[in-house]
Amino acid sequence: MSSGAEPRERGGTPTLASIAAKVGVSINTVSRAIRAPKTVRPELRRQIAEAMDELNYVPNRLAGGLSGTRSDIVGVVVTSLYYSEFASIIDTLQSALLKDNLQVMLANTRYDPDQEITLVRSILSWRPAAVAIIGVDHPAKVTELLKSSGVPVIEMWDVGGGIIDSAVGMDHEGAGKAQAQHIIACGYRHLAFLGSMRENDMRARKRARGAASAIAAAGLPDLVHSVRQEGGRPALGEELVHELLDHHPQIDGIICNSDVVAFGVLKALHERGRKVPDDIGVIGFGDSEAANYVTPSLSTIRPGRHRIGELTAELIVARINGEEPRTDVVDWELIARNSTRPSRSPNR
Amino acid sequence: MSSGAEPRERGGTPTLASIAAKVGVSINTVSRAIRAPKTVRPELRRQIAEAMDELNYVPNRLAGGLSGTRSDIVGVVVTSLYYSEFASIIDTLQSALLKDNLQVMLANTRYDPDQEITLVRSILSWRPAAVAIIGVDHPAKVTELLKSSGVPVIEMWDVGGGIIDSAVGMDHEGAGKAQAQHIIACGYRHLAFLGSMRENDMRARKRARGAASAIAAAGLPDLVHSVRQEGGRPALGEELVHELLDHHPQIDGIICNSDVVAFGVLKALHERGRKVPDDIGVIGFGDSEAANYVTPSLSTIRPGRHRIGELTAELIVARINGEEPRTDVVDWELIARNSTRPSRSPNR
Repeated sequence: MSSGAEPRERGGTPTLASIAAKVGVSINTVSRAIRAPKTVRPELRRQIAEAMDELNYVPNRLAGGLSGTRSDIVGVVVTSLYYSEFASIIDTLQSALLKDNLQVMLANTRYDPDQEITLVRSILSWRPAAVAIIGVDHPAKVTELLKSSGVPVIEMWDVGGGIIDSAVGMDHEGAGKAQAQHIIACGYRHLAFLGSMRENDMRARKRARGAASAIAAAGLPDLVHSVRQEGGRPALGEELVHELLDHHPQIDGIICNSDVVAFGVLKALHERGRKVPDDIGVIGFGDSEAANYVTPSLSTIRPGRHRIGELTAELIVARINGEEPRTDVVDWELIARNSTRPSRSPNR
Repeated sequence: MSSGAEPRERGGTPTLASIAAKVGVSINTVSRAIRAPKTVRPELRRQIAEAMDELNYVPNRLAGGLSGTRSDIVGVVVTSLYYSEFASIIDTLQSALLKDNLQVMLANTRYDPDQEITLVRSILSWRPAAVAIIGVDHPAKVTELLKSSGVPVIEMWDVGGGIIDSAVGMDHEGAGKAQAQHIIACGYRHLAFLGSMRENDMRARKRARGAASAIAAAGLPDLVHSVRQEGGRPALGEELVHELLDHHPQIDGIICNSDVVAFGVLKALHERGRKVPDDIGVIGFGDSEAANYVTPSLSTIRPGRHRIGELTAELIVARINGEEPRTDVVDWELIARNSTRPSRSPNR
């Protein structure tokens, strides 16, 4: 497996044989220069490396994959590529892993639990060095597969639940609580939680729960839920806020489950002639790029995205090197802008 | 390689031996059930499959990778994960490839040519079934490596240039021309091209060229360029538009290289007391989710993102099955909103 000629792949594709012919050595010498460089003298190694570069030969990593060994692949399982949070986490994670020569294999479940099982199984079949996966609430089969794989598993984005191995994320219940506390501190009293709430988006549920607990603690009327089991888009925010105010005209504070949904809410409120922040306050979640550029600019929660990507990469390398599993909690920040009135009490 | 016991991976990790013990057959029988199912009788195959599922055993795909063969990996090389265009292309592409049991290995060059060479080499070392890569303008070494790999290569997003094998994309020069033609048709006369222009973002250069040619054809004053070699962010739009109007107060039409940059432009113009669209017109590129939700709503170009992802997946499968290389040109759409005055002449 570790030496010998590769079958010719296609016309013109360089092989070990073409390198050997160019340098004037045996195929076995070329193979040794790749797989056991110290057994070939430096000058010859240099010539072989030059010939490989010139002929555009790329060594075959698959051929090194003996059964039972680990590959240099890190499986990354996300629930969506549309949220800038996740794109940002993947971006940071991928660049950091590259330094350790680890390659990202990407899977996107689109919040579908059957898809999650299929994709995790598929990624494990590549014997990855580690798996990083969004969330801590998975279908039971996913948890079982990951646990019995013996592969380091880093759960990302959330930390509120049972952890398979290690986790890097934020406290979503706490973030929802902070959204509500801010809007209460600004003097709004009749509050609603509005946005996308897919069955398997446990982070959204935790934030809604956090908001409800802050409202109960403040002795205010119960939180009104205006949610739908579909993806977050601005148009969803428009539809939901019209429905909400038709049925609950007393609402004066809207806690949105994402910034994109809040963008639609702001537009619909403007069309209904409701003044933000004077009549009604709006807070988002995510601090997406456009949040400071809508009218009025959006108060929101800024999660520590880059930090999650960086820490996940660090933890993957640490776990591969045999360090103990651990859970890192990453901070978030409340960004007060013009969609809520000035707060009457200091925030954390 | 194709049979035999796998070394025990870690405590509790299921192996061929644990399946064999559970079913009461030899390891060799389990191995045959996986690699040559027809050599094992159906009832026994069913028992083995059940035991594998129950013990959470996942077959090792690496072990099947004999030298010279192809893997089921499709390498996807993007230049950025921040642009919603690319996230959307990857999302569509990945879901479509899954139907053919092809797995995406993701690489992000961040517009760095050295990184592009490293990443393409790394992906080729996995002997992918195909490579999909953003753009048609690559470092010479990337083109050489891809050409000599013998692997089907689909270049995405752009079609204006020399194609390695196959391509699916849009005509960026034509899109830039359309941005300028729209803004001219709306009655603006002193035009600028504004935004991020990284050295290796050839698509941005092509759009700027298209805009300049439309302006020359209309006999208007030369296009003023207000660009910087860094990533597109709203804050960049703010900075550039202040600089631009300080030096060129006559400018009354701004062609932005992306929607996110246009968001900053709209905010800065509001702060300078310049009325959009009455005094000055602004057009974006991308039709990002927030484009219809800023004030005023942004006129822009909507590329056919999903179509590019879908067609790329189709073309990958076609090329793997031996069909001829081809180039598919995908349409884009001009979306006229409130950041430009009503057009005086019909657009295409």
